Amino acid sequence: METFFSLLERRVDDCSSLLCVGLDPHVDDLQSPTADAAREHCLRLVKAAAPYAAAFKPNTAFFERFGPQGWTALKQVIDAIRQESQRLGSHVPVILDAKRGDIASTAEAYAASAFDSLGADAITLSPYLGRDSIEPFIQDPEHGAFLLCKTSNAGAQDLQDLKVERPGKQPVPLYLHVAEMARGWNVRGNVGLVVGATYPATLAEVRAAAPELWFLVPGVGVQGGDLDAALQAGLRQDGMGVLINVARGIARALDPGSAAASLRDHMLGIRRAMQK
Amino acid sequence: METFFSLLERRVDDCSSLLCVGLDPHVDDLQSPTADAAREHCLRLVKAAAPYAAAFKPNTAFFERFGPQGWTALKQVIDAIRQESQRLGSHVPVILDAKRGDIASTAEAYAASAFDSLGADAITLSPYLGRDSIEPFIQDPEHGAFLLCKTSNAGAQDLQDLKVERPGKQPVPLYLHVAEMARGWNVRGNVGLVVGATYPATLAEVRAAAPELWFLVPGVGVQGGDLDAALQAGLRQDGMGVLINVARGIARALDPGSAAASLRDHMLGIRRAMQK
Repeated sequence: METFFSLLERRVDDCSSLLCVGLDPHVDDLQSPTADAAREHCLRLVKAAAPYAAAFKPNTAFFERFGPQGWTALKQVIDAIRQESQRLGSHVPVILDAKRGDIASTAEAYAASAFDSLGADAITLSPYLGRDSIEPFIQDPEHGAFLLCKTSNAGAQDLQDLKVERPGKQPVPLYLHVAEMARGWNVRGNVGLVVGATYPATLAEVRAAAPELWFLVPGVGVQGGDLDAALQAGLRQDGMGVLINVARGIARALDPGSAAASLRDHMLGIRRAMQK
Repeated sequence: METFFSLLERRVDDCSSLLCVGLDPHVDDLQSPTADAAREHCLRLVKAAAPYAAAFKPNTAFFERFGPQGWTALKQVIDAIRQESQRLGSHVPVILDAKRGDIASTAEAYAASAFDSLGADAITLSPYLGRDSIEPFIQDPEHGAFLLCKTSNAGAQDLQDLKVERPGKQPVPLYLHVAEMARGWNVRGNVGLVVGATYPATLAEVRAAAPELWFLVPGVGVQGGDLDAALQAGLRQDGMGVLINVARGIARALDPGSAAASLRDHMLGIRRAMQK
């Protein structure tokens, strides 16, 4: 059976890359504060980085702020990724970084928005509302969901780090409970986790709690996470299981294509060294 | 100092109402599955219910699913609420039910989207990423944020009901910890909570943990919550502090205006009885 993660793994093999290219058109990085400039900014990155990208991750916030025009730009960026996929002869998945979370028919409407209207392959979700808020996004095995587990910001300690009591089990930090739950919900091979790169020891801990899940790992570079340590702590034994998200490190490079290629090659070296 | 909740309380006084009218244009309720039909559905409700509405709460999901046209419709619905406010001579706040949650500059972009681009007064947010994910939304006292605390769905037990350990304190369910945190973050008078109506005892418990905060209470009617019990459990001693959200109970009524008026009057009766 084809699943979101079997599609992703095929792409990882095709391009020998674990790089997820974040598309975050910050107003500060644009030539003008407009949806057109956001689209052009992203299209340039898509074109330059596609050969080295295991996935692209546009963040809805930076498009929404431009209203309907921003929403149109987001759709155009996703369409451009589809065109690059065709050109490359290899499907590059689109992970919509939307961090949605709502119940019942509302979650269904968000799923329709992400997968049907925008044409994304996967989405990031908040786990706070529990399983029934996730289900509408993972009914189709070819669509995936990455649940926020442990984030790289200071506020992560406010909820995620709290130890939770569970009957008949040892207390664990909430983020590990989320990892265990996500593992249980992954019956169709399409549930992953968002785990920040800031603390490699935490990544290793989540890996131990969810040995087979894919992690989307932001926070390398600007947020201070160390790439090598993140891969060493997070990779599965098969050299898969970690998507390293880089946004500004590519967007602000003089040559985004070269920056993406270097990141791909560097990660490949680490993977090979680990598998020896 | 004017704050979101002082604005809301003025509106509650003006219309003697604690009713929040949910604007959820479910595809099933529309004449056709289009953004135009969603807009017309909502405009009819806004016009009929405005005199009895302490606030309106459009849910972004049902607009997003129609792409850019949906986003245009959402803006038009919010503009129509502004026009009704002018006609009534009383500002009816708009709470954007978006349940967003992201970090740093991304949260700032979502705040710009909700408050600057769409013109909403307040927003619902997920607390999972902690304080720094909330801050960009509450910098301006006249803009408010309702944090998800205890929701009315079955999945609420997966995270929200877990007991969390805190140094030097008794373990409490996560939702009570969120209530206590929100209370601490409410330094500008613009932080509230989303607490489902399903379990009045839980509402009373959250009220005890956060005596002065405003609660946005969904789940009355379709989701089985009891209106009288919710008000009795949630109202502050001043007869304020609870916004009862009703969506389908108004949208599916033969006469939405009468349905809203009846709800307003019924709640007013309960408030008066409690204050005797």
